[in-house]
Amino acid sequence: MSTIELNKRQEQILQIVKENGPITGEHIADRLNLTRATLRPDLAILTMSGFLEARPRVGYFFTGKTGTQLLADKLKKLQVKDFQSIPVVIHENVSVYDAICTMFLEDVGTLFVVDDHSILTGVLSRKDLLRASIGKQELPSIPVHIIMTRMPNITVCRKEDFIMDVAKHLIEKQIDALPVIKDTDKGFEVVGRITKTNMTKLLVSLSENEII
Amino acid sequence: MSTIELNKRQEQILQIVKENGPITGEHIADRLNLTRATLRPDLAILTMSGFLEARPRVGYFFTGKTGTQLLADKLKKLQVKDFQSIPVVIHENVSVYDAICTMFLEDVGTLFVVDDHSILTGVLSRKDLLRASIGKQELPSIPVHIIMTRMPNITVCRKEDFIMDVAKHLIEKQIDALPVIKDTDKGFEVVGRITKTNMTKLLVSLSENEII
Repeated sequence: MSTIELNKRQEQILQIVKENGPITGEHIADRLNLTRATLRPDLAILTMSGFLEARPRVGYFFTGKTGTQLLADKLKKLQVKDFQSIPVVIHENVSVYDAICTMFLEDVGTLFVVDDHSILTGVLSRKDLLRASIGKQELPSIPVHIIMTRMPNITVCRKEDFIMDVAKHLIEKQIDALPVIKDTDKGFEVVGRITKTNMTKLLVSLSENEII
Repeated sequence: MSTIELNKRQEQILQIVKENGPITGEHIADRLNLTRATLRPDLAILTMSGFLEARPRVGYFFTGKTGTQLLADKLKKLQVKDFQSIPVVIHENVSVYDAICTMFLEDVGTLFVVDDHSILTGVLSRKDLLRASIGKQELPSIPVHIIMTRMPNITVCRKEDFIMDVAKHLIEKQIDALPVIKDTDKGFEVVGRITKTNMTKLLVSLSENEII
């Protein structure tokens, strides 16, 4: 999306609605000595961009939202599906040693653990693996399902979830990544991964004026 | 900071400057049938918030910046010192085993390693410790300076650096945290820590309209 740059007529409409709203399109047109049809594109832009709201049989009114508030509103509407990464999954019978190797090979901080039906059963973070590695047991002989964080203690999200809710979960639960899942008859199928790295990238994109 | 909500007179001034700028404060006042003194607070707000710029002996002109662009500009000006966390440091002769324990006790993802003069000599991530833990050596007998990432291969930042530059370093170099340092005669003293968690928190604050 590009930035909202209002033209002179749109600023005038905004001013009229601020002072007189709710006001019908016809009345706005009268005040500007223009036809309703001429104004249609401007009114469309102002409502789509959130400056005005329109109610049937009432008219247009000013939402009272400034550019910054609108940005916060738009941030709140961003969805997981537009920012998620590819997940790395391993089978629950894989050894802790092999899981650590997979983590290095794939260069990720979190692995998702699945059963024979590719259904999510657990999550392995670097922290989980590090904890196991200072234990007394032999890493090649312990399967990951012994040490993983398991269902139902896993926070998941779905493609349509809001990215800001995920960001809050990451902070509150002090975790690095959430699995993005799809609901199936057998359980959760892992379709993505969303991390603090995705959040950092989103922040940089905002400062580059690329997102909203 | 609060959001930018312009009042009617400020919107009028903006409109006048848009159409006639550069224009002096006196000329704006004339057009509004007001005195220069009456307008002073409004002009101050409009220049401070970035909508207008003032040049001596030229007058006011419109910057052409909308709310969203201004937000991106402000994001770019945020500094490390306002978002950094407390660093956790260990001595370079501490064992890898003890470093892992410290990481769990302090609940951080990155440790900074210092010498006898409290000068930064290395960085230890969970990844570094995990790599060491699958090696053949005994963790309680290896000092961290054997396995740490060492100077000059450490990316550092300073309190006055821009947070967005740090965010870009974290992404490009694929690291979780940077030490915030102070320059001394002997080298870098560690004064803070800035992480992807700080970036995620900043993002949430933006969506809550708390920062800018």
